[in-house]
Amino acid sequence: MTDEQDFNIIFGPCAIENLRQLEHFFKTFPDLELFRGGLYKMRTSKADFQGLRGDGVDLLMNAKKRYGFKFVSEVVDFESLAVLEGVIDVIQVGARNMYNYELLRAVGKLEKPVLLKRAFSATLKEFINAAEYISLPPEKITLCERGIRSFEPSYRNVVDINAVIFLKQRTQYKVFVDPSHGSGAREMVSPLSRAALAAGADGLLIEVHPDPQSALSDGPQALALSDMHQLINDLEKLCPVFGRKLKWSQKSKE
Amino acid sequence: MTDEQDFNIIFGPCAIENLRQLEHFFKTFPDLELFRGGLYKMRTSKADFQGLRGDGVDLLMNAKKRYGFKFVSEVVDFESLAVLEGVIDVIQVGARNMYNYELLRAVGKLEKPVLLKRAFSATLKEFINAAEYISLPPEKITLCERGIRSFEPSYRNVVDINAVIFLKQRTQYKVFVDPSHGSGAREMVSPLSRAALAAGADGLLIEVHPDPQSALSDGPQALALSDMHQLINDLEKLCPVFGRKLKWSQKSKE
Amino acid sequence: MTDEQDFNIIFGPCAIENLRQLEHFFKTFPDLELFRGGLYKMRTSKADFQGLRGDGVDLLMNAKKRYGFKFVSEVVDFESLAVLEGVIDVIQVGARNMYNYELLRAVGKLEKPVLLKRAFSATLKEFINAAEYISLPPEKITLCERGIRSFEPSYRNVVDINAVIFLKQRTQYKVFVDPSHGSGAREMVSPLSRAALAAGADGLLIEVHPDPQSALSDGPQALALSDMHQLINDLEKLCPVFGRKLKWSQKSKE
Amino acid sequence: MTDEQDFNIIFGPCAIENLRQLEHFFKTFPDLELFRGGLYKMRTSKADFQGLRGDGVDLLMNAKKRYGFKFVSEVVDFESLAVLEGVIDVIQVGARNMYNYELLRAVGKLEKPVLLKRAFSATLKEFINAAEYISLPPEKITLCERGIRSFEPSYRNVVDINAVIFLKQRTQYKVFVDPSHGSGAREMVSPLSRAALAAGADGLLIEVHPDPQSALSDGPQALALSDMHQLINDLEKLCPVFGRKLKWSQKSKE
Repeated sequence: MTDEQDFNIIFGPCAIENLRQLEHFFKTFPDLELFRGGLYKMRTSKADFQGLRGDGVDLLMNAKKRYGFKFVSEVVDFESLAVLEGVIDVIQVGARNMYNYELLRAVGKLEKPVLLKRAFSATLKEFINAAEYISLPPEKITLCERGIRSFEPSYRNVVDINAVIFLKQRTQYKVFVDPSHGSGAREMVSPLSRAALAAGADGLLIEVHPDPQSALSDGPQALALSDMHQLINDLEKLCPVFGRKLKWSQKSKE
Repeated sequence: MTDEQDFNIIFGPCAIENLRQLEHFFKTFPDLELFRGGLYKMRTSKADFQGLRGDGVDLLMNAKKRYGFKFVSEVVDFESLAVLEGVIDVIQVGARNMYNYELLRAVGKLEKPVLLKRAFSATLKEFINAAEYISLPPEKITLCERGIRSFEPSYRNVVDINAVIFLKQRTQYKVFVDPSHGSGAREMVSPLSRAALAAGADGLLIEVHPDPQSALSDGPQALALSDMHQLINDLEKLCPVFGRKLKWSQKSKE
Repeated sequence: MTDEQDFNIIFGPCAIENLRQLEHFFKTFPDLELFRGGLYKMRTSKADFQGLRGDGVDLLMNAKKRYGFKFVSEVVDFESLAVLEGVIDVIQVGARNMYNYELLRAVGKLEKPVLLKRAFSATLKEFINAAEYISLPPEKITLCERGIRSFEPSYRNVVDINAVIFLKQRTQYKVFVDPSHGSGAREMVSPLSRAALAAGADGLLIEVHPDPQSALSDGPQALALSDMHQLINDLEKLCPVFGRKLKWSQKSKE
Repeated sequence: MTDEQDFNIIFGPCAIENLRQLEHFFKTFPDLELFRGGLYKMRTSKADFQGLRGDGVDLLMNAKKRYGFKFVSEVVDFESLAVLEGVIDVIQVGARNMYNYELLRAVGKLEKPVLLKRAFSATLKEFINAAEYISLPPEKITLCERGIRSFEPSYRNVVDINAVIFLKQRTQYKVFVDPSHGSGAREMVSPLSRAALAAGADGLLIEVHPDPQSALSDGPQALALSDMHQLINDLEKLCPVFGRKLKWSQKSKE
């Protein structure tokens, strides 16, 4: 139907680690439309693994040729923006850079679609203002709610489901939810995904890993590939009920 | 089907104001199974309208006889517990009383079903511990997430959807969501309700008012009766998708 | 000097445990003017030590006769209010009961001075409104800031020093700070105490314990008696600089 | 005395507006040692006044020659770092850039003292890690607590006084407090300043304005020059009590 809206799932590993990890991943999801993976990681501690960085670009170029996906990746600064410019199709700006207006301006100049994550405790006014710094038409910008900080120690963040609703009602932007960072707990990802769909979100950003136990970063929140399969099947059934069409593989395009 | 679980909606006005309001309400929802309405209001300011209190008991008794509903109402202290004991079927304990362990103990002794709301910034450990003070079997206790306080000024509270998921995964209690207090904004109630269902909640607690503009308390978050109708229709369709059966009227019982 | 204002320190153990603990305490502080100690404890878990309760009343009566102090203790409900009525001189209402308006009304009727603690995430408007439920002249009511919940895991709470200033500037109530609960960490108690004095607070509520390692509750935040001595000496010197006179022993009265 | 520690006050207008404003300011404080003023402003909305930017450099160069102060100013990105490099003596990095690790690395390379503000809801671990990205010896880095976000609407932020104490006890960095942003309210600046000194902070960052009513940004929190004078006199007396020597003018140097 023509008036049906898409519901997108963008997924992939928090950090791209090596060729083997990529091949394992695409064996399971060969037709993925949008592949998300980190080459540059912004880590709280400068001692942590910071990603393959520039060394991963060739790896990705080859993978794109072979599997035909579009690549979504985070730029963490000007250097990474310059390095990734030729290989990324959707530019992700992370929570820590939401207030980095200079970077937002530079990102906007490339005129590619932008996925902007909400800063840890940003007000919605600040979030919307940050999107305006990108200076692109609203259909090119996706706002991503990724959890706010709270006093509750049982999970890393609280998905601000009210924010999803508010942003859908008051802005023209697409609104995604990141249930992986929004909870920090694998077992909460599926119910949070369903809630996001039901609340009116336009899509999800999800971390998966072929082998979550051995992930170099954020393992506890990554879905195993089989769980991701299950979630896709689940959402496939749910989407039509909410007037949505699930879109995640190149085949679901037409 | 036997393995289908109920999804309950409990609704009614924040405060019961007079006979006319009640009759207007039951003209629209004559078969309501569970009617929720406040006789005792716990108001931040002692100058605010505190409910009909004891004066409303006869009103309610007569209405129960006529319409056959079960009555859910908040006890705010020992006096109200004593006064309402004969007329309430489900005892609601509000957010401000979640730490009132003496009241929780007394409420438990009546052995009626209890609906316990989470305090403004209670941790889940505190919430669960409060439920234990009631000393009733888990199937008699419903925990109600009603929004946590945040720094965001656009809405009164943030529904902690993570909490709903966590409580369903880790406890035996039924878990409800109150989207009215959880947002303080009428236009967010429907999407929050859908999100609650999708996240795995067992039911909703919703404020309605025949004429929200003139409500003596919490008008801006109350649904008009026609909106409530719409929401019920909406949920009627959604429930089966989540393996639930909507239960709100006496007819939906069998 | 007549225009000098008092700065009060109220201290004692979180929970009164036995005669030995009391005697040990009063050997070090025989002239204490206001002694604070818990007989009824409001514990998150119903399995935790809940205080000596009524069994401690005689103990306290005897101690009062012998040492001449005034007793400050928390009432947690109506029962404890009835039991403690004859032995307490200042009625403490804890954070968990700040919204317990019925209890506040009953407390007010005794016309004794009241120490009201701020609920975990109460707004100042709610705090002030709760004080009004007590219905006593402002000079009989002391508001106690005891820390708000935050996302920071390094300490249990954050002393809202802005609140202390705001309440002093906008209300007629005395304002105290509880640095013990306000941090949950012994080593932060002294600097927090100095900051409270400097910000304009009228006094402190501090937990001490003859042997913090073996305390039945809240050990990690209790000061050893020697540390308390040190803090008193410290504040004795600081008070005059802020136009205050330290008041903690019966000798500092005249 | 040699074992006395300095307590520094850095102050000036939020935004440097024009020559007249500067001259007015230095007429009142001709011997200021450290002058803080914004040339680049990071504004939530891209429509707001963003500072004189590069156009203000000559103005500042001339003022420095005439009055001999050292200049503290915020760099908001690489461009401003390049433009201000020749004129700033202490590099301020604002709350919005605390996670901008690339900028922190570049700032560190200049080997000038750095004043790093805490992000809106940064944990202390993140704050300390950000300081490590600067890669300078601890004596060259000052951490500035500027208030955390809370649910309380009466003030813009809450000064996390616990953080000041924790950072002094656990790190080697100097720790400042910004009572202007920490409250957003002029009348709270003096008591917050006293509390910061008493808690163990090493200094203050304060906004003043010759005519707060007409300030182009953040007027409601700026002190009038006469109030600043008063605060200095106040702190002059208090510092020795805390083993500190107030340092703010070139004369207080020797």
